[in-house]
Amino acid sequence: MTAASEEKLFALWRELSDISSASAVLEWDQETYMPSKGQEGRGRSLSTLAGIRHRLLTSPDLVDALSACEGIAEPDSELGAQCREARRSVDRASRVPEKLAKALAEATSQGLACWQKARAESDFSLFEESLSRIIELRREQAEAIDSNRSAYDVLMDEFEPGATEAALAPVFENLCEQLSPLILEASESRPVDESPAMGDFPVAEQKAFGLFVAEKMGFDLEAGRLDATTHPFCSGFHPNDVRITWRHMDQDFRSALYGIMHEAGHGLYEQGLPAKWHGTPIGGAVSLGIHESQSRLWENLVGRSHAFWKWALPHFTKYFPAKDGLTVDQLWPALHTARPSLIRVEADEATYNLHIAIRFDIERRLFAGDIAVADLPEAWDSAYEKFLGIRAETAAEGVLQDIHWSMGAFGYFPTYSLGNLIACQLFDAAENEMDDLESMIAAGEFAPLRAWLGEKVHSHGARWSASELVQKATGQPLTAGPFLAYIRNITSQAYGLENPSSSSGSRR
Amino acid sequence: MTAASEEKLFALWRELSDISSASAVLEWDQETYMPSKGQEGRGRSLSTLAGIRHRLLTSPDLVDALSACEGIAEPDSELGAQCREARRSVDRASRVPEKLAKALAEATSQGLACWQKARAESDFSLFEESLSRIIELRREQAEAIDSNRSAYDVLMDEFEPGATEAALAPVFENLCEQLSPLILEASESRPVDESPAMGDFPVAEQKAFGLFVAEKMGFDLEAGRLDATTHPFCSGFHPNDVRITWRHMDQDFRSALYGIMHEAGHGLYEQGLPAKWHGTPIGGAVSLGIHESQSRLWENLVGRSHAFWKWALPHFTKYFPAKDGLTVDQLWPALHTARPSLIRVEADEATYNLHIAIRFDIERRLFAGDIAVADLPEAWDSAYEKFLGIRAETAAEGVLQDIHWSMGAFGYFPTYSLGNLIACQLFDAAENEMDDLESMIAAGEFAPLRAWLGEKVHSHGARWSASELVQKATGQPLTAGPFLAYIRNITSQAYGLENPSSSSGSRR
Repeated sequence: MTAASEEKLFALWRELSDISSASAVLEWDQETYMPSKGQEGRGRSLSTLAGIRHRLLTSPDLVDALSACEGIAEPDSELGAQCREARRSVDRASRVPEKLAKALAEATSQGLACWQKARAESDFSLFEESLSRIIELRREQAEAIDSNRSAYDVLMDEFEPGATEAALAPVFENLCEQLSPLILEASESRPVDESPAMGDFPVAEQKAFGLFVAEKMGFDLEAGRLDATTHPFCSGFHPNDVRITWRHMDQDFRSALYGIMHEAGHGLYEQGLPAKWHGTPIGGAVSLGIHESQSRLWENLVGRSHAFWKWALPHFTKYFPAKDGLTVDQLWPALHTARPSLIRVEADEATYNLHIAIRFDIERRLFAGDIAVADLPEAWDSAYEKFLGIRAETAAEGVLQDIHWSMGAFGYFPTYSLGNLIACQLFDAAENEMDDLESMIAAGEFAPLRAWLGEKVHSHGARWSASELVQKATGQPLTAGPFLAYIRNITSQAYGLENPSSSSGSRR
Repeated sequence: MTAASEEKLFALWRELSDISSASAVLEWDQETYMPSKGQEGRGRSLSTLAGIRHRLLTSPDLVDALSACEGIAEPDSELGAQCREARRSVDRASRVPEKLAKALAEATSQGLACWQKARAESDFSLFEESLSRIIELRREQAEAIDSNRSAYDVLMDEFEPGATEAALAPVFENLCEQLSPLILEASESRPVDESPAMGDFPVAEQKAFGLFVAEKMGFDLEAGRLDATTHPFCSGFHPNDVRITWRHMDQDFRSALYGIMHEAGHGLYEQGLPAKWHGTPIGGAVSLGIHESQSRLWENLVGRSHAFWKWALPHFTKYFPAKDGLTVDQLWPALHTARPSLIRVEADEATYNLHIAIRFDIERRLFAGDIAVADLPEAWDSAYEKFLGIRAETAAEGVLQDIHWSMGAFGYFPTYSLGNLIACQLFDAAENEMDDLESMIAAGEFAPLRAWLGEKVHSHGARWSASELVQKATGQPLTAGPFLAYIRNITSQAYGLENPSSSSGSRR
């Protein structure tokens, strides 16, 4: 009976996983190769697959098998973790009435169109009504899923299971307090010379160099690929089939290289997920924050370091001979600007989290009812002025810049910052545990770091919650300390600040 | 009640179509971009989608809706055609017991592996047992689907609805009788000079020229794409998303150009399918024979004609300047060889159908029990000797050359020949109906021909049976006359035969 319930649960989950994997292939194709007129047909296929997935996820067969497994699973056991993850998905799917799910799908589809128009015309009023409707429906959805928690906590749970406003609010407050003065100080000092990162970089060489680095990181091109797209992403259909994507700028190599290192970091996580659990509830990544930590670690802590460039520069100049003679010291500051800017996706390491803090604060207040949709533009601009010292001149550069809200993705933004913090915390732990990580990186030996991440993060799938995983991997709960120390250190170096605002010591 | 049944049937069929479309995307990706290690995961996704499709196709809901529609459909009405096509799929799916379907899937999966090994070692005995099992199961399947018809007729019905041994046997007999002596006569005369088609053809230029021609044919690249693969094919996910594929040889432009024109011919059919019927039972192509007629018409009757090259040659020499000075008369014979060869996929227009005739004859005798699996190699070699005058020295070049039997695809080969015959019959009809088709082609004006094919073939989906479609489009039932006249004509011209064996006159 027991074994039969487990077998049934896993067989049904296998189908769910196969359908999700098929949908992911269709979405990847949509962003890479699909001809422009293919959109309508693709939308239908994806919607049918989503419908079938929902039917299977809420089927009495599956729910019964899950309940039976829950009845026998020991706390903290592997089966217990399987039940925890399965229950989360089943409840989120089954508690939302079909009518509400359809209304949400319609509202966000319409929302996307309204946002696009509003952004093109830089007129928030064109988006206002649609956004209000989306927020109303998302609030209703959160209430249906769990009326005992705040709507925003329930929404965040979709992307970052276990994350709460109560835990995150002080983290973001601390980030803002620490980062704002540092950035303002940097912006008042001499600007960084970015010319070493600029020049003519032919696309074929940029791709070849990016692939060279990705393979060195350990990204397996027999179990993955790299393709061009407009908005880069990583999608794993299976640990043995992981697609990363890129875009490039002709005159600045940073966009392509760091984009590829970022996605390859995600890709290593997907390729490192345990094959034994593939297709089971705990077979995937544990959270978006943990996922982002993997991409940010490789992109920033490895890819922008002195050590990395000590190894990479001779290769770089082989691909780009015009840069012959460039030194690491000349290039390094151009990788560590701290420049307040209006557009999040173009922000540097130092300022990025302030963009996220602003969205987190606004989203919470929206869902708590403390701010009206009509007041969003003003709330947005004031926050940018307060924390970054600049104000958007148009709504398109301000409140309308991100696609997320039009898709109903509230509670998604915080995962970006969590990723930045966890990346630093993990990197510190790796440095502490491994013999001379810096020398290994300077020698182009990335396998030990990848293996460490594999052991501490990738191989656990969703066996532990994100916070348990951070605790186990680093010996500490989530903390912003390593991140703040890192930013303070690089910013003061890049801008030659003698006494960077500091509230704690830093090893680096 | 009536309207409700129709609505239900079409809503359920829409889901089937969306799932088929998703599977097609996964298969396309598998043949173009999937990394090598992705096979296992992809196999699982495809198998789950096939399982879900089977469940939906045999669900009581769908069967009830179909029966209700059948009860009210007027004969020869559009709804009648919808019911006919739906019934064919439902019956084929529901009459085969699940146990048999699984056994077939296993046997063909094993068959593929055995065939690959046998072919690599050129040892038929390694494939014999597996092939026997596949034939036994396919016979059982045919019996389950319709015990009143010959097994081979039931199997052909999967690819070419309505095709029968009784109708096809005399057609193939006639083809062999007419073609064999002609080919032997050609092979005894002076060989054709193929050097005009050979030389250095850079891959990028081959692709660019192929795309240029495909677009001129009317293939819409906003509703389709061209990608590289090992075994070229065309796959339509939707009339607005059609993928064609190609491969090339460095030293011979014919492989790539005619491959692309062939697949673009298929592609025009897929893009021309009626959008109003997309996702309904009659929304797809009517048969593989009709599909192949579209590819062969563009590849051979257009692409190898004097008229085409009169237009194409100046463009061709722009892409390949080394061919500057080449004349149509010099090139034309190299496009019309009639050379007996052992490998079907490399055969020319004149000899191709003899390869098919041999397989048709062997397949029929196998399923009638007139030939044992162990006797296949000898039966194969004798047939090649009789009709083409050559004998394979190894099993890999003979009976083991094709993948089809290992996949259980018996009854598939005849559709290739049907395509060749129908192509000529359609082209003759087009010439009769249109004002000076030849001059239009010589001027690079392909739109009128494409429009004619659209009106006569593409736009009807599976509204009419293949034989009805041929009758309506050409005013005649299927006939080999135009094909034989065409082959006789071009072969005698290319080889300078004064009195080509002939049993009927020819316009060309």
